[in-house]
Amino acid sequence: MALLDRISSPSDLRRLSERELVALAAEIRDFLVASVSRTGGHLGPNLGVVELSIALHRVFDSPRDSVVFDTGHQAYVHKLLTGRQDFSDLRTRGGMSGYPSRAESPHDVVENSHASTALSWADGIAKAHELRGRSDRHVVAVIGDGALTGGMAWEALNNIAAGRDRRLVIVVNDNGRSYAPTIGGLAHHLDTLRVTNGYEAVLSWGKRTLRRSGAPGRLAYDALHGLKKGIKDVVAPQGMFEDLGLKYVGPVDGHDVAAVERALARAKAFGGPVIVHVITEKGRGYSPAEQDVADRFHAVGRIHPETGLPVAPSRFSWTKVFADEMVRIGRRRPDVVAITAAMLAPVGLAPFEAEFPERTFDVGIAEQHAATSAAGMAFAGLHPVVAVYATFLNRAFDQVLMDVALHRAGVTFVLDRAGLTGEDGASHNGMWDMAMLRVVPGLRLAAPRDEATLRSALRAAVDVDDAPTVVRYPKTPLGDDIPAIDAVEGVDVLARHAGPGARVLVVGIGSMATTAVQVGEQLAATGLQVTIVDPRWVLPVPSALVKVVGEHDLTLCVEDGVVEGGVGATLAQRVTEAGIRTPVLARGIPAQFLEHASIAQLVEAVRLRPEDLAADVLGALAAADA
Amino acid sequence: MALLDRISSPSDLRRLSERELVALAAEIRDFLVASVSRTGGHLGPNLGVVELSIALHRVFDSPRDSVVFDTGHQAYVHKLLTGRQDFSDLRTRGGMSGYPSRAESPHDVVENSHASTALSWADGIAKAHELRGRSDRHVVAVIGDGALTGGMAWEALNNIAAGRDRRLVIVVNDNGRSYAPTIGGLAHHLDTLRVTNGYEAVLSWGKRTLRRSGAPGRLAYDALHGLKKGIKDVVAPQGMFEDLGLKYVGPVDGHDVAAVERALARAKAFGGPVIVHVITEKGRGYSPAEQDVADRFHAVGRIHPETGLPVAPSRFSWTKVFADEMVRIGRRRPDVVAITAAMLAPVGLAPFEAEFPERTFDVGIAEQHAATSAAGMAFAGLHPVVAVYATFLNRAFDQVLMDVALHRAGVTFVLDRAGLTGEDGASHNGMWDMAMLRVVPGLRLAAPRDEATLRSALRAAVDVDDAPTVVRYPKTPLGDDIPAIDAVEGVDVLARHAGPGARVLVVGIGSMATTAVQVGEQLAATGLQVTIVDPRWVLPVPSALVKVVGEHDLTLCVEDGVVEGGVGATLAQRVTEAGIRTPVLARGIPAQFLEHASIAQLVEAVRLRPEDLAADVLGALAAADA
Repeated sequence: MALLDRISSPSDLRRLSERELVALAAEIRDFLVASVSRTGGHLGPNLGVVELSIALHRVFDSPRDSVVFDTGHQAYVHKLLTGRQDFSDLRTRGGMSGYPSRAESPHDVVENSHASTALSWADGIAKAHELRGRSDRHVVAVIGDGALTGGMAWEALNNIAAGRDRRLVIVVNDNGRSYAPTIGGLAHHLDTLRVTNGYEAVLSWGKRTLRRSGAPGRLAYDALHGLKKGIKDVVAPQGMFEDLGLKYVGPVDGHDVAAVERALARAKAFGGPVIVHVITEKGRGYSPAEQDVADRFHAVGRIHPETGLPVAPSRFSWTKVFADEMVRIGRRRPDVVAITAAMLAPVGLAPFEAEFPERTFDVGIAEQHAATSAAGMAFAGLHPVVAVYATFLNRAFDQVLMDVALHRAGVTFVLDRAGLTGEDGASHNGMWDMAMLRVVPGLRLAAPRDEATLRSALRAAVDVDDAPTVVRYPKTPLGDDIPAIDAVEGVDVLARHAGPGARVLVVGIGSMATTAVQVGEQLAATGLQVTIVDPRWVLPVPSALVKVVGEHDLTLCVEDGVVEGGVGATLAQRVTEAGIRTPVLARGIPAQFLEHASIAQLVEAVRLRPEDLAADVLGALAAADA
Repeated sequence: MALLDRISSPSDLRRLSERELVALAAEIRDFLVASVSRTGGHLGPNLGVVELSIALHRVFDSPRDSVVFDTGHQAYVHKLLTGRQDFSDLRTRGGMSGYPSRAESPHDVVENSHASTALSWADGIAKAHELRGRSDRHVVAVIGDGALTGGMAWEALNNIAAGRDRRLVIVVNDNGRSYAPTIGGLAHHLDTLRVTNGYEAVLSWGKRTLRRSGAPGRLAYDALHGLKKGIKDVVAPQGMFEDLGLKYVGPVDGHDVAAVERALARAKAFGGPVIVHVITEKGRGYSPAEQDVADRFHAVGRIHPETGLPVAPSRFSWTKVFADEMVRIGRRRPDVVAITAAMLAPVGLAPFEAEFPERTFDVGIAEQHAATSAAGMAFAGLHPVVAVYATFLNRAFDQVLMDVALHRAGVTFVLDRAGLTGEDGASHNGMWDMAMLRVVPGLRLAAPRDEATLRSALRAAVDVDDAPTVVRYPKTPLGDDIPAIDAVEGVDVLARHAGPGARVLVVGIGSMATTAVQVGEQLAATGLQVTIVDPRWVLPVPSALVKVVGEHDLTLCVEDGVVEGGVGATLAQRVTEAGIRTPVLARGIPAQFLEHASIAQLVEAVRLRPEDLAADVLGALAAADA
């Protein structure tokens, strides 16, 4: 690793020859494969931006110039080039973050890993520089073609175009990820740009990529269509970006450092907003990734570096149950359709898509459109199931409220990766959904505890035709089914422990049922009389649950969502309104941004282990006695 | 009103001659001016779409074909043509809604009056028709050029372009409202389209409009720039829409019924997604509106039909205080900048813009970009003040959380029209903000009660440089200042009433202070010992307030936000956590969609009058005694 050892800051890069840069890129790829296969992380995206990151740091002067990475999971190379070469603790507590982190380095600007934000950040920074007389500073936003499908990116482009004198460079890292068959106009246009600008090498590579990157039949059509289209439009090669008033440079082969550097230098010298269109290959240089056409090793757990095969047990077992049940529902119900926001495989819709391609809609990174177009579909007689990561539904709060709920549209939202997600850091934890959704009139939310309740919640959700329904579940592995021993008006009783002591009710929300059962056992061991229940449908809080609370001396409600305004707080509000005096201890995730760590470490840090919760109950009972 | 009387459904329109249609348009304009000047409402937008609405209903077959209006405030003519001609009770309880309403008519589809949603609705409806074998049904979305600046519109365009066979017509109602100087690329492109397609009549009219519709110096530049640009680009007349894969028809003179009808008929026959670019003049045919260059009588209270002058006292007195204090802050603090999402005048930023034009940014209908670009500005050393209507901040929840709060950015959000807004119906009530924002880590929210506390809250907000701060106030008129008689660790005491009875604490949030004082007086009259307080900074709930609660036997907390998870609920949660047993009655707006009515009627309906609240307190005390 001779060359990489010599790079402790971007200025060191500028001393290397062109040949050394090529060697450095190869070293970096070897480093990434060796290191990420050991720790897990975002491999494919970083393999794709090796040369681009080198060129960025040779042309621009970070941190004086700001380099803003959209979503941030492609910042590993940037980290290597800005003095951070210890990847041994990547994404573990106290180790390096998998995203840019201001605490790590002044070279890092944006930590939010939700997509499509970089252009807005850059626009704000450029405006501030201009006003403060620092117009010699440049701002660079690096955004994937996929993220350009998000509405925020459009809002920003429109504003950036208005600032004709601001030194803002937009690098579109085009790895063809928006080329999925159903993601429309923008992909089409980028495709046109690829093939109309006389860039033959890119052209043949582009066709090859297109041919193998998705559903073959339709893609072949799309590629051909793009080609014909390109020839027809050759008189207007710069297309829509130029129409918006943005200078366009490209396309550039993103794996040719010198070419990228020349393009960036031109853009830097221009003195106004410029788009640099860089064609890259996700997973570049690592053959298991290059051969994985669907995902290109986007994010991996620990893998074998030679074969790329996982070395840890498979994850996302909740997702697999959803995937399976969704197909069953699809067979029974021709009106049920699926919507994904650029996450077809990760949310488990691939099997549904394979069986019902015409009933599957990938809308791009466009959660707002996902929700509102679902309302439109419901109006016209379908039942859409919108499957997204829990944290990304935040993007569509207004649409869930004003388009779906206000219009009483029968739409099912399936929130995967709800609760703590751990290693991806603050902006991936799916902890905000229940507190956010509790105000939505008419909305019902189910938090299933196991496979059986997940399947039944999904079946019930698609039967609701006059309101939004939400089903949410976590990233943690699915355990065995937890059968109910009884049910009280729809509230499942998971266990009852007799005892001479005070009557304690433990309410487990969703996957916290396991924790609730364990808390109950620990409390019963102290002689308390304990009931453990799971309401399954948690919003609105069932009135039966409120009644059950009234039959106990103390209630503990445990959820894997933000405790501030969550289900426990809602239950407490309902209990007070019912004139019931039983105290409700609400426990969940505090309203804080949680640093990356393992889920188990976070559970301990936020005091959600069974022993923490049992201690809280005992403390509360003691205080009441005092 | 001979012609209008003969129109009870769209089919009646098809029997009229071209000459009769012109006469009908004139009748409709007279009707609108006479009627809206009496009731108040959205005058300018409806005067602009008279011919367009007639043509739409002649070409398409509503409700079999769906006509979706974006924001919906331009649906008055549509209502007149679909059997609703009684405008006497417009926007009053039980009368006609000012927006489309499914309860009123099968011709109405979307009730949400937040901008930029229509294309997503239309995409969803068209997809459903296709899947259900109803491809002969057309879907028409009518969207303003301003609303196209919203990110949702981009997400939808991108998806619509992918559906090459779906019968979807997008009518861009271009009245030049996105032509404000700072709203960038899209306006520029629409401008180019106006002037390059050989449409001479529109060209001269367009130039005239541009010249008079805003800050003169810069607009003259923009218009000229657009013209030059247009000539240069004449080889690519259809520009970005075509690049995205959308057929483009236009521009069409939107006040020539026959021309609009021809364009719509062409679009209808095409069999795939088409954009029809219609140039209209907001306020058309009513000279007071035509002469009001800034606003074109967008929304009016009751006015004199001849002069257009208001006949009711002026409104929005909170806005005026903000407008004034913002200028004062701007003079003192060169780092403070203002951001508006296409609402410069309505939110009170016009005086700031007049004095500090280079420090004022109108980002278009783009709340997401407003929030995130503000985070960027804060990163680079400015303090942005983002002023929006409270209900529209819902669009930027994720950005407030993940861009502003996560990055500890010093950004002030000013939420106007918070609480009940009444006549604009469900989607305008600014009732969701506090329940939504309470989970945002580090965020502080002030709800001032009067002019003095509004000014001091704003001054304090711009001094915070490491977290988001929110100041929110209502649409209702500002009353006299309510001085504090005492303060307990920052919690203002507004009154204390001695008495032999139980100790009751009344907490008034923001403008509910007046109500709180009245409740206190009514309770004191029954012999209770009452304290009335206003914490002013309500999120996070001040610990001093929790302590004060502990010194009373019962607490009532009154807010003009959704009670579900609102400030009162948060206070109750804090009180429970502190081990304090004093019951907290939380009162506010129920989590329901409220039909249009006057604010006073809504206050009564949701039981927020002083007498309702006093009765609740007495009831709770009686229940506790029993």
